[in-house]
Order: sequence, then C-alpha cells, then structure tokens
Amino acid sequence: MIRVSIMGAAGYLGGELLRLLLGHPGTSIAQAVSTRFPGRRVDSVHPNLRGQTDLVFTAPDDLERCDVLLTATPHRATMKLLPEVRDRAETVIDLSGDFRSPDPEVYERYYGVPHAAPELLGEFVPGIPELFRAELAGAGLISVPGCAATAAILALRPLSGLIGPDVQIDARTGSSGAGARAGDTNLHAERSGAMRVFAPVRHRHEAEVARLTGLNARMTATGVEAVRGVQVVCHATGTSDERTLRRAYRDHYGTEPFVRIVAHRTGAHRLPDPKLLSGSNYCDVGFAVDGDRITAIAALDNLVKGGAGAAVQCLNIRAGEPETLGLGFPGLHPV
Amino acid sequence: MIRVSIMGAAGYLGGELLRLLLGHPGTSIAQAVSTRFPGRRVDSVHPNLRGQTDLVFTAPDDLERCDVLLTATPHRATMKLLPEVRDRAETVIDLSGDFRSPDPEVYERYYGVPHAAPELLGEFVPGIPELFRAELAGAGLISVPGCAATAAILALRPLSGLIGPDVQIDARTGSSGAGARAGDTNLHAERSGAMRVFAPVRHRHEAEVARLTGLNARMTATGVEAVRGVQVVCHATGTSDERTLRRAYRDHYGTEPFVRIVAHRTGAHRLPDPKLLSGSNYCDVGFAVDGDRITAIAALDNLVKGGAGAAVQCLNIRAGEPETLGLGFPGLHPV
Amino acid sequence: MIRVSIMGAAGYLGGELLRLLLGHPGTSIAQAVSTRFPGRRVDSVHPNLRGQTDLVFTAPDDLERCDVLLTATPHRATMKLLPEVRDRAETVIDLSGDFRSPDPEVYERYYGVPHAAPELLGEFVPGIPELFRAELAGAGLISVPGCAATAAILALRPLSGLIGPDVQIDARTGSSGAGARAGDTNLHAERSGAMRVFAPVRHRHEAEVARLTGLNARMTATGVEAVRGVQVVCHATGTSDERTLRRAYRDHYGTEPFVRIVAHRTGAHRLPDPKLLSGSNYCDVGFAVDGDRITAIAALDNLVKGGAGAAVQCLNIRAGEPETLGLGFPGLHPV
Amino acid sequence: MIRVSIMGAAGYLGGELLRLLLGHPGTSIAQAVSTRFPGRRVDSVHPNLRGQTDLVFTAPDDLERCDVLLTATPHRATMKLLPEVRDRAETVIDLSGDFRSPDPEVYERYYGVPHAAPELLGEFVPGIPELFRAELAGAGLISVPGCAATAAILALRPLSGLIGPDVQIDARTGSSGAGARAGDTNLHAERSGAMRVFAPVRHRHEAEVARLTGLNARMTATGVEAVRGVQVVCHATGTSDERTLRRAYRDHYGTEPFVRIVAHRTGAHRLPDPKLLSGSNYCDVGFAVDGDRITAIAALDNLVKGGAGAAVQCLNIRAGEPETLGLGFPGLHPV
Repeated sequence: MIRVSIMGAAGYLGGELLRLLLGHPGTSIAQAVSTRFPGRRVDSVHPNLRGQTDLVFTAPDDLERCDVLLTATPHRATMKLLPEVRDRAETVIDLSGDFRSPDPEVYERYYGVPHAAPELLGEFVPGIPELFRAELAGAGLISVPGCAATAAILALRPLSGLIGPDVQIDARTGSSGAGARAGDTNLHAERSGAMRVFAPVRHRHEAEVARLTGLNARMTATGVEAVRGVQVVCHATGTSDERTLRRAYRDHYGTEPFVRIVAHRTGAHRLPDPKLLSGSNYCDVGFAVDGDRITAIAALDNLVKGGAGAAVQCLNIRAGEPETLGLGFPGLHPV
Repeated sequence: MIRVSIMGAAGYLGGELLRLLLGHPGTSIAQAVSTRFPGRRVDSVHPNLRGQTDLVFTAPDDLERCDVLLTATPHRATMKLLPEVRDRAETVIDLSGDFRSPDPEVYERYYGVPHAAPELLGEFVPGIPELFRAELAGAGLISVPGCAATAAILALRPLSGLIGPDVQIDARTGSSGAGARAGDTNLHAERSGAMRVFAPVRHRHEAEVARLTGLNARMTATGVEAVRGVQVVCHATGTSDERTLRRAYRDHYGTEPFVRIVAHRTGAHRLPDPKLLSGSNYCDVGFAVDGDRITAIAALDNLVKGGAGAAVQCLNIRAGEPETLGLGFPGLHPV
Repeated sequence: MIRVSIMGAAGYLGGELLRLLLGHPGTSIAQAVSTRFPGRRVDSVHPNLRGQTDLVFTAPDDLERCDVLLTATPHRATMKLLPEVRDRAETVIDLSGDFRSPDPEVYERYYGVPHAAPELLGEFVPGIPELFRAELAGAGLISVPGCAATAAILALRPLSGLIGPDVQIDARTGSSGAGARAGDTNLHAERSGAMRVFAPVRHRHEAEVARLTGLNARMTATGVEAVRGVQVVCHATGTSDERTLRRAYRDHYGTEPFVRIVAHRTGAHRLPDPKLLSGSNYCDVGFAVDGDRITAIAALDNLVKGGAGAAVQCLNIRAGEPETLGLGFPGLHPV
Repeated sequence: MIRVSIMGAAGYLGGELLRLLLGHPGTSIAQAVSTRFPGRRVDSVHPNLRGQTDLVFTAPDDLERCDVLLTATPHRATMKLLPEVRDRAETVIDLSGDFRSPDPEVYERYYGVPHAAPELLGEFVPGIPELFRAELAGAGLISVPGCAATAAILALRPLSGLIGPDVQIDARTGSSGAGARAGDTNLHAERSGAMRVFAPVRHRHEAEVARLTGLNARMTATGVEAVRGVQVVCHATGTSDERTLRRAYRDHYGTEPFVRIVAHRTGAHRLPDPKLLSGSNYCDVGFAVDGDRITAIAALDNLVKGGAGAAVQCLNIRAGEPETLGLGFPGLHPV
C-alpha cells in the first residue's frame, strides 16, 4: 500500500483527492491535513464521505513522513510551504498554481508577486500523462496544470503542425474552481445563472498552454452556471480537412485511457460537454472545421481530470501501478 | 410626490425597493441609507439600476426627515434601530422580522432573544392589504410579514371554517431570502441544486400564520434551486368539495388586484409556481382536494409580494394613491 | 458471471442499469433491448458510456434466455409485456410501476386502467432489501418500488409504533423521473427553475407507502430544479423525544450498507439532501422533533437507490453475491 | 392607438411581444394569431399574462387589417407566409431569420434552402435602431436581426477602424432561443447544466454581423444553463489603449437609451452579463484590452432586445412615439 498524505484536505480539491483515494485499492491515506479544521472528522466537511471513512483532519505541524505527499493548498501560500515539506515524501504532487512554469518571471506576470522558491521551479514535471508519461515514472516533483490548461493542451496538441501559431481559447468554468471559501462574488444569488467574464484577457492558464504547445495562446474565461466542469473552445486557423484532423487526434489518443474523441456531425452530445463528466477522469476532445478555421474543443471535470484525478493518475504512473487504478467512474447521464 | 427613504438599501430587499420606487410615478427617493457603502453609487451594488439613477448611499447618521421611511434592515438590529428613527417620518414600514407579532414572548420563542422595544409591538398593522386594507389607510407603523407567512396566509384565509384547525405548511424558498451577506452555506457550489431542509420544524413564519389565520399552523422550510421565489403547500383536512372551495377563493379574491386563483386540472402551469412570478407583485393561490384532504398552495416572489412589493402596495394605500401604482410588471415566461 | 439482460435499455433507468452493470465485477450484460433504437450503439444514446462498451441495442423480438432479466419499460406496457418474457430468466426484476401492489384494485385506482396480469401480482417481492432481504434471496419476481415510495418507506419504518397513523408526505423530484421522452412539460425552458406541484394530492407512490408501513399515508409531489434526486419530508405526530427517535433509526439501520442516518443540529448538510447522492446507492434518512410533531426526511438518487441501484442490490442478494458489489460510488461534493 | 397584430403569437417571441404590448400605452393588440391554438385563451399558453388580458388566439385565415403586423413565425415558413400577408398592414416587422440578408445566396448558404421570396429581400431595413434609426422611421418592412447578431454588432460597431478585419465571436445562449416546441435535445434532463457547442463553426448569425460591421466575422455558439440570455465575446486585434476604446464606445452610445457601457476593472458585475437583463431591453456592451488583443463583450435578453423588445423599439420609431415607450423594465437583481 502506498501511504499518501494530503495537505489542504478540507478544500474542494482536497475532498476529491480523499474520495478517489478512499476508493483506490493500492493506497492508504496517512494524513489529511487542514489548517482550518484540525481534529474534526473529514466527513463533517465532505459530507459525501459519510460512511466511507472515520478519518480526522490533522494540523499542519503534525505532518509525518509518507510515500506520496499531495499539496492542494492555495496559490501563493504553496510556494512558501512546499520547500518546508519537500522532504516528507519521496514524491510531492502539487495541485496549486505555484510550480507550473519553470520561469519565475512568467509566474510574477500572471500571479502578481515574485516567486518564493524559484530554485525548485525547474524540477517539476507537468502532471499530464498524455505528454510526460515517461518523465512522470521517475519524477520526485510533479505539478498538475490548471484545469483549463489541461483541457486546452489536450485539445491542441494533436494539431501541432496543422494550425497557425495564434490561438484564441475561450474557457467556461463552474463555480467549484473558485474554491470553498465564501465571498461576495461566490454567493449563490449572485453566481447562479451568471455568464461572468472574469478574465476577458490574459487568463493565467494561457501561459501553461503556450509553453506546452508552443503556440501563441490567449485565453478568456467565463464562469457559467455549473458547479463542476471546464470547457475550452479553441479558435485556430489551418488548411486541413476533417479527415486529416480526425487522424491526428486518433494518432495521439487512440490508446489513451482517459482521452476520448467526441466529434460527431449531429446530436445533442456531438461535441465535448462537461455535463457528462462530473466525477469522471475523462477529458473529451473534439473539433470542427470550416474553410480555414479550425475549432478544437475539450471538456473535463475541473476537480478530477483537471486536478485530483490527474494527480492520482500521475501517482499511479509514479508508483508503477496500472494507470487507471481508482479512476474507473465513467460519469452520469442524465445529471 | 411622496418622499421616501430606505434604510438597509444595500441589501436585496433594499435593492428591490429602489427598483420599484424608481419606476413609481408618485414617489421620489429621498435617501438610500447603507451602513456598509455610504458614498458609493447605488448602481455599483445593484447593477440592474445602471442607467436608472445616479443616487448615492447615505450613512445612517445622515438620515433626514421624509414622508415614508422603509426599514429593510436585519432582524434583531431593527428593533433597536426603529425607536431611534420612528420620528423621521409620519409612516414607517418595516420589512424585518422584528415587529410582526404583538406578543414579545412569541418573538423571543422564535428569534431567541428578548424584544428590545416591546412597547411598540402593539402599534404595528400587518402589511397584508388583502386583510387589513382599512387599517393600513391610517397606519403610522406597518410591519410586512415574512414571505412564506404572506403566502400561507393568503392560501389559507379563504378556507376559514372549511378546514380543521391543524395545518402543516411545507415552504420552499430561493436563496435570496438569506440576504446579500456571503457565508459558507450560501456559497454557490454548496447551495446550487440543493434541497436543503433548513427548518424541519418550527419555521419562524408559522407564528404569523397562526395568529392571522387562527389555525394551529406548523411550518417546515426547504431551500431549493432558485434565487427568487417562495412556494407553500399547506396540508389541511375538511369535507368541502372542489366547487365550494373555488367559490370561497373567488369570494375572497375576486376583486383583489394582486391575488390570482390558479387551480386547473391539467397542464404544466395548473397550480401556483414562483417561476412565473419573478419581479411581479402577484401572489398566486390554488388548491386541490382528495376525500377529506385539502391541499392549498401559494407562490410569490419573496422580494416583491413577499417584501418590497407588499411595502409599496401598503405605501400606496397609506398615501391614498391607486393601490397598483408602480407594481404593474406581470412576470416573465419562460424564464 | 451472471448473464443479465435489460428491457427498456434506452431509457434513463435502462442507462443507469447499464452503467452499474458495466462496472459490476460479477455480471455480464447479455442483451440491451430497445424498441426505439435496435442496431444502434448503446453509447450513442447513453454518452457517458463512451469508451466503456461496444454494446448495440437488440430488438425486443430477439430477446434470448438469460440469468436475470431487468425490465425498465413504461408503466401500463410492462404488465402486458412481462407475462410474455417471464420464462426467459429464472429471475425477473421489474422497475416499472405495474407490479408494486398485490391488489389489482389499488392499481386501477392509481393508474386509471385495469391490471392486465392480476394473477402475477401476488408473486412479486418488493425490491427493498432493508425490509425483505430474506425473501429476496429466493425470489423469482421482484418489483422495485417507486423512488419516492422507497424514500418514504425507509424514513418511516423505524417510527413504527412511535407515530400516529396519519402521515402527510411531501415529495420533491428531479426531472429525470419523467423519463427520456420529450414533451411540452419537460421542455428545458418550462421545467428549469420550476416548483411544479404535479400531484397536489394522491401521488401514486402513497399506496406503496401505506401498504409497506401500515400508515395512512398521503403524498404530494412537486418537481423542483434538479435532474436527479428525490427528497421526502414526512409530517407525523408522536410523543417521542430525539434520543428515542435516534435509537429507533440506529436499531433499524445500524448495519445497513446503504442507509445513512443524517440528523445533525446545525450545518448546511445537517439533513438528507439528494444533491450529495447523484450516482450513489445511499438513501440518507433523518428526522427532527418539535413537541408532538415529528418530521422524517429521506433523500436518494431516483435512478440509483430509487431504481437501478436497488435492482442491482436485489440482484446481488438473489445471486448470493456481496450485497454492495458494483455499488461503491459514494457521490460527489460539491456538485 | 396603434393597432398591432402578431403572427406566431403562441411562441416564446410571440408571448414576449404580447407582454410588452399589453404594457404599452400607445398600442392595442388587434389579433394574436396562432396555428396551433386558435380559440384558446392567450393566458393558457402564456401563464404570466393571467389577469392581464382576456385575449383569445385567432386562426391564421382570420387575420384582419391592422396598423403594424409582427411576424414571429418559424424560419423557412415565414418567407412563404410574408408575401401573402404583406398588404394587411402598412408596416410589417419580421422577427424570423428569413429576411435578414439582402442576398438570397447568403440565405441559402446558412439556411440550406433557396429563398422563396428573393424579390422582397432588398426592401427590409434591419431592426437595429442604433444603426438605422432614420431608415426605420419610414420603413414598410423591418427585419429584426438574430439575437447574437444584435449583440455582436453593438459590441463591434464602435471598434470600426480600431481593429483588424478578422473577428472570432463566441456566443453563449439560453434555451428559450430554440423555441417552444419540445424535442429530444430540449428535454430538461438533457439541456440542464449543459455546455453544448451546437455551432462549433459558422453559426448563422455571423453573416449578419459580417454584413453590418464590414468585418470578417466568424461565430461559434454554445448553449449554456439559462433560459433567457445571450452573451457574445468577440476576439479582435488592434493597437488602441483602453482610453481610446472607451471614448469610441461613449461616442457611439452616450445618448442611446438601451445601450449601456459596462467595463469596470473589478467586481462580479464588471462586464456584461445577461443574468441582469431578463425582461429588459438593454444591451450591455463592454471591452478589455491586453497588448494587441481586444475583447469586446455584449449581453442582452434574446427575447427582448434580441427580439420582441427590438421590434417594439422599431415600432415606436416607425410610429413617431417616444422610442422607450413600453420598454421601461430595467431587469432584476438578484435573480
């Protein structure tokens, strides 16, 4: 059994890590660390885990050694915290935004503060098995990309060489991505039914997409009515026909366990929709073409393939386990 | 022009009062008082009023004399505040829960603290025109009932003498009733799609229903997915047939401008549904009968007929204006 | 491997049966029968199953022998169909409303037509493991109760002897319960955000509750904004205190794998809410007491514990498998 | 009083025309024509109009002469119908898609069939008062643009000369735009919470935007969770700074009664969101800039400013009435 501890276990990503690991046959949860709720039962914060565990949150100071440490702690705090806990586990998988770029200047441009641990940045392997499976197998430090970044990277990678360098990405997100802390903008009466363009230009995740695809990627992001789910619609130019594009996607993802190609001509479910993916580790990718315009689309559950599920997939690879272990839930329909 | 001031103008009921009064041809808004946002533009807090007004919030200490003062301030705070501002206007219309019962013991039982101004309790006329039209015409102090209480009272009053004394009321409410202050339970990710029984027994509004109907009323309340809207389903016993019940409702509400009888045999809209009533001052009432069981149903917009609209309707009556002035919006379909 | 076939496999309950059985280690799906879509891929109708199966729908005439036959076909049609297919499997588990009462007069009263196979009615064991575990182990014919009936029965059974005979049940339901056929009342623009009292009196499921609890149960039902989920709020009278009630629930459900007691004093998740249960086989039950009034509450996913999950649980019992096999998904939070 | 008749009065746009005209002090409704429901009360189909009118639907054959005829009939049917009814009124305002382009080839490309009345195409004035106020004052035939087209045109027109020719428009729409006829894709369980990219390339409205802005406009459209509302996010390139852009918007819309500039730096309501606009005739426009990228955003209610409200605004202009008559409802918050 792989002994896994989670920091930031009371947040939404933390709760999803707990759910996945409690259902994972090859891991045991050593500690669930929370600064807010030490001593409280885990299922008092994550009520879906009632009957699944008697685990109690641990205070950060009581973190012990484990095999894998998962950090689902806030942006800006994690870069200070991670150097302190680096030695508690052979492998640390970070789900925050703090170690996603190797370049501290990129960090400062998108997060507004200088990086506190620039010396560590170069050591992280991006937590995208579809691109870095070999590197992940031996990684000591893994950084799971932003949810919209993962979606866009998986949508765009097969188009490498088939599209021009400029890509405009339109991301739509559910409210869980903003975390479990209440604020005026997250109030149900305000957020319900909204189409809130919270990043009309320069969404943070564009830097990750640019780096890992080599494209000049720009990202806009809008919060729409959903709790879970991210969808990206990527606008590109190119001269390939549908058959060529489909072949490119198949070549990339034909054997991937968690990427499905969804690109039909008709039907309500012809293209990727996160509605079908709640709780699932799938990233669905699709495309359409009209003359010289190519639209690439991807959808995923921001808390699973866009966070906790990607982390578990990386953990499985790192530990030499079957990559799909504990990640079998296919999603619901209708829901 | 009737000069009206609003205390608690930055809350959701305050915003709705502003919307209604800005569209009211017989009133002018003297001051919009807010403790949180003095000096800020009203439309920065209530964005639907952009282009409708240049009004700026006033600090409470700067409240001046006016013709009618509307208090949409929080429960428990209002009973301390109201005696201090009572003399600023000939008429004060309170939308809080603090002056709804003439009996301070009832207040303490349901609100958990002793009443701070028990000497005023007996002076308030309930803000239900359908029951107290004559008294409202000369009232100096008016207390608008709770939104679920208004709905239940209007559903049950025509059944007086036709049903037994025990009534179980099942109320379902939108999230706006909890106000504009963010908290863990109001977070979109938590509240969205919920069916949250927040008062399995003894909802506060049952005391108002009991007093104004003479029934032994019990109320359960559940938050469901909606921002606006209250619906009550009242379970009673009686031996009347459908024709008798319909006549009773017609006798009570045949000439009422804001109560509609909605009781059809079939169709998606056969019975009252708050979905149709957002922004409207209507209370729809309906019923069904099966043997000795009678179900009475009512729906309204908690911020309009359940709050700000009722207050404006009372204001119209008090001022001798046509009762429907400024309250003409019928609601949308579909929405 | 138990060879299972499904009739009505293109409906919502059919899709949920497919999802559960595809993830079940002890069963194989022999045939997925559909009158509408014979020859089409199962995942073209149930898009959440993409990548899970290559199964194709079979025409009804091609139904072969199997170990267990699950009928998820429409009310009124099933009673004609079932006698014809009874001999295809040792065990038939029916999810329709047609075989829930042993009394054909009750059927006619609630479904409006005479029963077509009254001779079979007495043979069915109700698909509620918590009440009929022993009988289910040897049953040839099993009828899964209505989703709201299951919820109400599980909420009320522990109160036997502690409450008076009259119980008023208030059920709230998501839209998936109305099935996968489009109609004017199911249109998104009409149904979204609704609080639609579709059964103000005499909801069909009340007959099942009455029979299996011995109570004089009446049921009202309202469609609220949700796709999945049923919640019942049961209003009863009694003189027990909270401790006695809690003990009664513990005595009944302390060892049940799929019933959780959720009855806290405070918190957003203090009482059962179907929001937490999408995809899960749990039925959460809770209660509150105020003087002589007792409120019992239950929540479940209408397509899982209220349908397909209950059927699989019964199938496990019938086949001598561990009862929880294939039913481990705990539900998501937030969602 | 202007005597107005409506064809297609039982649809969603028809219902919205009825609501607006019933509240309009300068018009009377002569006839509400419906092929499906002749003889039925209007409020049996549009339940929000209960208590507002006793009007009954008229059969198409009984259409009489009136001052203004509004056609809210389906695409493809309207082009056959309109020539037949052209002479019933001095002014015909069409809300369908059939007369939006003067070029029959454009029609055929986007609607898939040849145009049935190409000789009329050149006579229509587009129903956008902000661009064609003078022409509308004397128009006999008016064609209200598509809802997403109106939004995009109003967002982009002020940028003329400030942006490059290529614009990618990302439209998000509510479900009411698909009309009141039920179908598998409109089923609540399927459409609820969806992010459905129904036009990944070449949405019909792009042709209108291209024609009226002179840009090489491409449009993608996604159905998101909402009943009403359209939002467009337009991606363009340019070198102007924020101040220049703001001046351009002010120059265009400073005196427009129904266009508001919403472009703040922070806050939940910093940019246009249709959530605030249900029932309102406002189109909110905003923008943001990052280097050489300009994002222009607009939001409106598809049934009001994107349809019935625009028609009434045009009718007011055509009749020499104040342009805002009957269009005063500002929208709700929260909702």
